[in-house]
Amino acid sequence: MARLGENRYGKSRVRLSRITRASGPSGSSDLHDFNEWTVGVLLHGDFESSFTEADNSKLLPTDTMKNTVYSLARGSSAATIEEFAMELGDYLLRNNPQVSKAAIEIHEKCWERISIEGHPDATTFKLGGPESQTVQAERERDGGWAITSGVDGLTILKTTKSAFTGYIKDRLTTLKPATDRIFGTRATIKWDYVSATQKFSEVRARIIAALLKEFAAHDSMSVQHTLFDIGKAALAVAPEIARIHLTMPNLHHLLADLSPFGQDNPNHIFVPIDEPHGYIEATIER
Amino acid sequence: MARLGENRYGKSRVRLSRITRASGPSGSSDLHDFNEWTVGVLLHGDFESSFTEADNSKLLPTDTMKNTVYSLARGSSAATIEEFAMELGDYLLRNNPQVSKAAIEIHEKCWERISIEGHPDATTFKLGGPESQTVQAERERDGGWAITSGVDGLTILKTTKSAFTGYIKDRLTTLKPATDRIFGTRATIKWDYVSATQKFSEVRARIIAALLKEFAAHDSMSVQHTLFDIGKAALAVAPEIARIHLTMPNLHHLLADLSPFGQDNPNHIFVPIDEPHGYIEATIER
Amino acid sequence: MARLGENRYGKSRVRLSRITRASGPSGSSDLHDFNEWTVGVLLHGDFESSFTEADNSKLLPTDTMKNTVYSLARGSSAATIEEFAMELGDYLLRNNPQVSKAAIEIHEKCWERISIEGHPDATTFKLGGPESQTVQAERERDGGWAITSGVDGLTILKTTKSAFTGYIKDRLTTLKPATDRIFGTRATIKWDYVSATQKFSEVRARIIAALLKEFAAHDSMSVQHTLFDIGKAALAVAPEIARIHLTMPNLHHLLADLSPFGQDNPNHIFVPIDEPHGYIEATIER
Amino acid sequence: MARLGENRYGKSRVRLSRITRASGPSGSSDLHDFNEWTVGVLLHGDFESSFTEADNSKLLPTDTMKNTVYSLARGSSAATIEEFAMELGDYLLRNNPQVSKAAIEIHEKCWERISIEGHPDATTFKLGGPESQTVQAERERDGGWAITSGVDGLTILKTTKSAFTGYIKDRLTTLKPATDRIFGTRATIKWDYVSATQKFSEVRARIIAALLKEFAAHDSMSVQHTLFDIGKAALAVAPEIARIHLTMPNLHHLLADLSPFGQDNPNHIFVPIDEPHGYIEATIER
Repeated sequence: MARLGENRYGKSRVRLSRITRASGPSGSSDLHDFNEWTVGVLLHGDFESSFTEADNSKLLPTDTMKNTVYSLARGSSAATIEEFAMELGDYLLRNNPQVSKAAIEIHEKCWERISIEGHPDATTFKLGGPESQTVQAERERDGGWAITSGVDGLTILKTTKSAFTGYIKDRLTTLKPATDRIFGTRATIKWDYVSATQKFSEVRARIIAALLKEFAAHDSMSVQHTLFDIGKAALAVAPEIARIHLTMPNLHHLLADLSPFGQDNPNHIFVPIDEPHGYIEATIER
Repeated sequence: MARLGENRYGKSRVRLSRITRASGPSGSSDLHDFNEWTVGVLLHGDFESSFTEADNSKLLPTDTMKNTVYSLARGSSAATIEEFAMELGDYLLRNNPQVSKAAIEIHEKCWERISIEGHPDATTFKLGGPESQTVQAERERDGGWAITSGVDGLTILKTTKSAFTGYIKDRLTTLKPATDRIFGTRATIKWDYVSATQKFSEVRARIIAALLKEFAAHDSMSVQHTLFDIGKAALAVAPEIARIHLTMPNLHHLLADLSPFGQDNPNHIFVPIDEPHGYIEATIER
Repeated sequence: MARLGENRYGKSRVRLSRITRASGPSGSSDLHDFNEWTVGVLLHGDFESSFTEADNSKLLPTDTMKNTVYSLARGSSAATIEEFAMELGDYLLRNNPQVSKAAIEIHEKCWERISIEGHPDATTFKLGGPESQTVQAERERDGGWAITSGVDGLTILKTTKSAFTGYIKDRLTTLKPATDRIFGTRATIKWDYVSATQKFSEVRARIIAALLKEFAAHDSMSVQHTLFDIGKAALAVAPEIARIHLTMPNLHHLLADLSPFGQDNPNHIFVPIDEPHGYIEATIER
Repeated sequence: MARLGENRYGKSRVRLSRITRASGPSGSSDLHDFNEWTVGVLLHGDFESSFTEADNSKLLPTDTMKNTVYSLARGSSAATIEEFAMELGDYLLRNNPQVSKAAIEIHEKCWERISIEGHPDATTFKLGGPESQTVQAERERDGGWAITSGVDGLTILKTTKSAFTGYIKDRLTTLKPATDRIFGTRATIKWDYVSATQKFSEVRARIIAALLKEFAAHDSMSVQHTLFDIGKAALAVAPEIARIHLTMPNLHHLLADLSPFGQDNPNHIFVPIDEPHGYIEATIER
């Protein structure tokens, strides 16, 4: 006979944008903030009868979850995706006794205020890098919030201070050792907060700055080597986090082989490729 | 201080295509099979020194993993992605004592032989549905293979025998109960084999046929209800598998509201949307 | 001074799905057809004042165009995307004297009825190949309809009967002549109808069948050679069309070079690549 | 009988990255520039025999075009995509008498030098916005270069100073007039240079700055209205260009309807949607 194992359900890709008007001396000012979020909700709980008995009486429709996102956002004073994730999850747990755990995921698009002739414009924005700011927030009914924040798709590259030598050579090796190569990656980074009461925005900025600083300065002997050291740098500046997890695909820029044309190529012209690519993933713990 | 936690590395998106020539009575015949695979390799093992000491002496370059895929494929008699995944992983474990676990993932594109005027053509193929056939195969050095096969992106839809009523109504509910709606999904399905010596191709076909048969016949009271019953149907026809995991986003086709124009709409015209979408996921165990 | 040149506007990606119930002997039967279309509307006309004088009095909102698609679809008896495109354009021209030309584009997804144990199911469908059926229909106010139908993304491949030799060799040539290679393409094909009163569905099927038959049979000396001959084959079977336009990127499957490993590779293992790719485009006229 | 009409062929998606080392006082310095380009080549010419007679003797293989890109790039001193496009096209025309016209297209990714603690780093870069810088360059054998430069995917948004009122109302209108709405777009912009001897980089920067300044300042009565005025602003600052072409899809952020929950929504919470979307396109001439 068949029986229900692990299960969960929810609503994915609930998109929301928000204008926040700063308070000026005499009420709402003309300075706007703008955020665009994509929210996902996943609930665990006592839903077995919906699977096995066609009994929907314990199901909160995913359409209602979507409505909940918009209705809560209207009244919310959350300044960050972390705070809104917890507010949304708390609401769902409080109002749905059949739910044992709420997991909320939010991605924020990289909208940046533009400057006109050197002056930040009050109400105009441009989509920046491909990266998005992320949070995964989970709470068991009787537990506290576990907050994992991060950035997805941070696409960075250094044109020197990257080598790869001394690796295993076997009968299938054709790779040449490189003492100076391009190091490009589209990093996915996540860090676990020690507690759920943090200045998320400030810690986030501090972590990203430390990661980028170490990435730029690092004398890389491998992707592994750099991954570890930038993770270490993040831990060093952020006592608020317990660990950091980094996924760093190696987006190769292969040196173009111009020898058939009688030309040299002293690290000048490269062929960037999307596939195949190296993939390195690790958690750095304290 | 920082220390290395969980880690793994490998090569992603190694693409390979293969022509297999059937043996005819007098040698190789003109009947071709064609497969296109995307292979991913992930290794766990004794790689700490590469992260923390810039010592690459235990690293098999990901470029060599790519070479290994092509070289093994040339000599392989694997008929299925499952068999090739094990062959590749066994080779990597055998030749790399520092590797403690190999995880191989392969996706196969849906190339189908075309028929011309009712006759299958010997050497011409067309890309079929968006779905791909998948395998995730893992082996610890001292263990056996754990084989999880599946299909990604199976996009199916039924135009009737789908209802959703009797759910929770709260102050944020706006969804109307539906006794006859479109049920569309892009399913991701995985099943765990009881053992690694199976007729993978035959079992796969049997499982997919059972899933589709139950999906078509099912009198659905919810996505959960259908997910459970099609999983149960698969388990019933395939004693070779221990459990089945199904992810079924609910790809909504909303009834177009034509009332502002004085028109009715008796389940005739719909608005398909990609986002937001419901998301239901469960494992069905024996 | 600046002045307005060529301009047009409209609504893109209006998605619509439709259930059509066949009429049975005693009314509507249980046999359903299902279509999913993405409609685009572009209007040319007397819109200059909206650009240059902020006068919107001649603008039909794109939101109304979207409403028009759904409202007309409800009452329409169009069996094909070609017929619906004309019906929609005729309505917009008739009701908007400021419009001088309507251009309608529709893509239809490849939903296919599934069979269960050999029997077509009345109400269940599966998304087939990546290709979509297309139409671009244009009419000037005082003219007739120009109908261009086609297929986008038809992804086909032959494993033999494809060569490429005898080309120019210069100091930058490294390509080796090939007498037997894989020929893969993701074709975009369009044909212009001689008149707008055709059995679009039947002609479409005839053209696709002729193209595929010739593609399979062709002894290809180049992509150009095959492109021309399959276009010729389509013209031969379809007097209803005036010309056919084919775009055939050459989706390369490169023979894997296994010589570093001491292995031969007699057209067995290939490396498929998405980029770069050859691109060949031509119109075949009568 | 069938005959060959318009045709062309070439190589698409030839990807290239380049490190340029600034010259320091005593030779090459440690300051790097980094560019990533995707090059497309299309040739028109006397290729009929390849289509109709399987005669490849006038075909330059697309593989050789790819090689030509890399080989020329190595020796090139082109600082911009415009200059490299002309250099590449000139080479192909000079060496291939059968070619009557060369069309080169290049997209440049938005790599930006990162700053560490306020100081630009010499060798580290981050992928910025989704936009790419583009050029389409065409030359007939006996003519000069026609250079069209632009930007693709410039994604910008203003949170106020955008209205849409006074449009046509008919029986299918449901849109409410808006006096204050979000105006978001993913613009594709192209400008035609008067001549091919320009300071492309400087003109490009001037045009983009003028477009953004006007976009931010504009009191928009419609997308058409803003499109025209930002095009006019670009023409005003760049006598080097003859005209500018703008495509501005209207990426809607719909005001969330919170009235079912008894909440107001004074332009605070929105629902961003990708489809359907308005589409406005025009050329602004001098």
